Amino acid sequence: MVDGKRFAAKRLQKFKASEIRELLKLTEGKDIISLAGGLPDPQIFDVEDLAEIAREVILEKGDKALQYSPTLGVTTFREELREFTRSHGIKVKDTDDIIVTTGSQEALYLIGRVFIDPGDIVIVEEPTYLAALNVFRQYDANLIGIPIDHDGMRVDLLEEKLVELDAKGLRPKIVYSVPTAQNPSGVTMTNDRRKKLLKLAEEYDFLVVEDDPYSFFLFEEEKFDYLKTLDPNGRVLYVSTFSKIMAPGLRLGWVVADKSIIALLELAKQAVDLHTATLPQYIAEEALKRGVVRKTLGKAKKLYAKKRNAMLEALKDEMSDLATWIEPIGGFFTMVFLNDRSIDTSELLLKALERGVAYVPGKSFFVNPDKGKHSMRLNFSYPSEEQIREGVRRIAATVRAAMVEARAS
Amino acid sequence: MVDGKRFAAKRLQKFKASEIRELLKLTEGKDIISLAGGLPDPQIFDVEDLAEIAREVILEKGDKALQYSPTLGVTTFREELREFTRSHGIKVKDTDDIIVTTGSQEALYLIGRVFIDPGDIVIVEEPTYLAALNVFRQYDANLIGIPIDHDGMRVDLLEEKLVELDAKGLRPKIVYSVPTAQNPSGVTMTNDRRKKLLKLAEEYDFLVVEDDPYSFFLFEEEKFDYLKTLDPNGRVLYVSTFSKIMAPGLRLGWVVADKSIIALLELAKQAVDLHTATLPQYIAEEALKRGVVRKTLGKAKKLYAKKRNAMLEALKDEMSDLATWIEPIGGFFTMVFLNDRSIDTSELLLKALERGVAYVPGKSFFVNPDKGKHSMRLNFSYPSEEQIREGVRRIAATVRAAMVEARAS
Repeated sequence: MVDGKRFAAKRLQKFKASEIRELLKLTEGKDIISLAGGLPDPQIFDVEDLAEIAREVILEKGDKALQYSPTLGVTTFREELREFTRSHGIKVKDTDDIIVTTGSQEALYLIGRVFIDPGDIVIVEEPTYLAALNVFRQYDANLIGIPIDHDGMRVDLLEEKLVELDAKGLRPKIVYSVPTAQNPSGVTMTNDRRKKLLKLAEEYDFLVVEDDPYSFFLFEEEKFDYLKTLDPNGRVLYVSTFSKIMAPGLRLGWVVADKSIIALLELAKQAVDLHTATLPQYIAEEALKRGVVRKTLGKAKKLYAKKRNAMLEALKDEMSDLATWIEPIGGFFTMVFLNDRSIDTSELLLKALERGVAYVPGKSFFVNPDKGKHSMRLNFSYPSEEQIREGVRRIAATVRAAMVEARAS
Repeated sequence: MVDGKRFAAKRLQKFKASEIRELLKLTEGKDIISLAGGLPDPQIFDVEDLAEIAREVILEKGDKALQYSPTLGVTTFREELREFTRSHGIKVKDTDDIIVTTGSQEALYLIGRVFIDPGDIVIVEEPTYLAALNVFRQYDANLIGIPIDHDGMRVDLLEEKLVELDAKGLRPKIVYSVPTAQNPSGVTMTNDRRKKLLKLAEEYDFLVVEDDPYSFFLFEEEKFDYLKTLDPNGRVLYVSTFSKIMAPGLRLGWVVADKSIIALLELAKQAVDLHTATLPQYIAEEALKRGVVRKTLGKAKKLYAKKRNAMLEALKDEMSDLATWIEPIGGFFTMVFLNDRSIDTSELLLKALERGVAYVPGKSFFVNPDKGKHSMRLNFSYPSEEQIREGVRRIAATVRAAMVEARAS
């Protein structure tokens, strides 16, 4: 065996590949309708404007746009970001309360790196964002899930859990939430619960991470205040991304938090990648100035609402007798729960692939995978309306066949 | 105090800011000649070609170039990279032996994340690349420095150290080297030493990281084989970057290693930033295809050789009686060692700044900072020839003044 392979083999335990991911990789290039992904529809990319902006930025500011840049992010871009964020009602005290990251994935990673010691308690919604779970697991956090309902995180159950922990002398370090158009469920936390969550943060002294990829293009009018805005004491770390509001290929995310926290994230980031790519920051700055983001948001809202409706209609037509689901008011996904709780959707996936459709088994979104066994996440942002309808039809057929088979055996 | 600040304060020990970095930050915007940085001269950026490429790539391939992309990197870009790397004589078996990273900084970070457990022995050249030291320190590696001379790492001393360690039942996990136009000294390891290093790697069973930002534009004809090419058994992880051969603002690095190692780096990278920004990868792919990198390398070689010569001349004229230095055959830096070993260049820095010149104190490049106390790293890639001459003059004056003061006291 090549020696490099031997070294790699010894480390494989530390970095285990996701079986689901490997399975879904096999579908690439095949004639399979994928409701498994989480990609934006490229129709929303403002290709003409971005092409022109890229050209101009390189020609006119190439000396800077092609050069190394500060770890915190390009200052003029952070100023634009500050205004953009504020204009949506998110409290930002100062430009130095912002750091630019290589996608919001890096934001979560850096937050973990700075704050989580092995064994620290991190509380998340259940189900929650898969990639956040993975980050917290890599830091050996002690994860606790709190169920959600149609009004977001069950903050009453959170309080019970906090009391229970407190009795053992334990407190969480971080509560992680996607309060608005939650991933994967699409629900939004009510303002009452938001306020209660922040009161609990004071009482039990923890940080709150508000992950917010979707609030800028909700499908319905929804009144809510950002956790960051309600936060009196700098406990909230607000995280967002350009991936859904402009283009993922620029790989730009940002964090708003007290500047003392931002300074720590900056130090951690120095070692990770020195700084986020400069050129995309200059492009995004100009895109914000010229209203490209505003334009994209308008398109996104309309397009995704239509697709969401197609998904809900297909579910109603095909799966009313098989499952329940949450009606998302934003985001890219809906979460479907099968009535037959004996079906394990991760075992079902292979059969679904044979019928030409892919989804993500619900397990992956739960701290305790068993709780999500009979659920699946369906994406509606990327596939066409026709693919959504056909995909749901195929899933329904797969579920029905499995039920027949189970009865026969 | 804001609660966020209290949380941050508790974590400050884990992520200590570099005093030097903070000091140099203060110079920004002031009328100070900086020989402290490590920036390429923007004159070498091929602004016209890159602007046109960026425009075309977004217009014609926007669906992909603005979208999420694989963690390993865009496949067609990795194919171009494979050919580019091979064309310079570096052994690459396969496209899957390559991963694209967010600058070579992330490459080093991921290597640390995958392979270094706290207390693992990592051996480096002394002096060595500052940012690599920082990464290894963050992973609590047990660092050991091996001196360099004009022929690169003193592999004979490495062997002595390995024997000494072996007697205690210890072995290094990784030997990190910048074998070609070393940072910060500019020297290149002879082929005999390279072969010996790899023999030792077999004998004492360690991995070798070959960090290579500079080999593509050496100022003099130099015969050498890459460690990666001499490596029979997949022990070498080759790391390089587009920052010096095209533009740092794209933030593109890459690693060549056995695919089992690349697969581990991929898993680690998934959690860190999901993938490297897509658009810069499409731009760099096209730039490789159209010969933009080749053109840039031609310019870089000429421009930096001239500046290096200006630096060496200035040192000869101004500091012959004060210091010795290594003549770099490539790269961005020269390392200067003061004859008066009682001078601490990190204390001297404040006085140098008062005289309007900045450098990086040598300490930062040494495992044992004391060994580098009387040295400094000078950059010649970014300042103009006139600034180089004037900067060296000011440093010489600062050193002379310090010597007079020392005698007086």
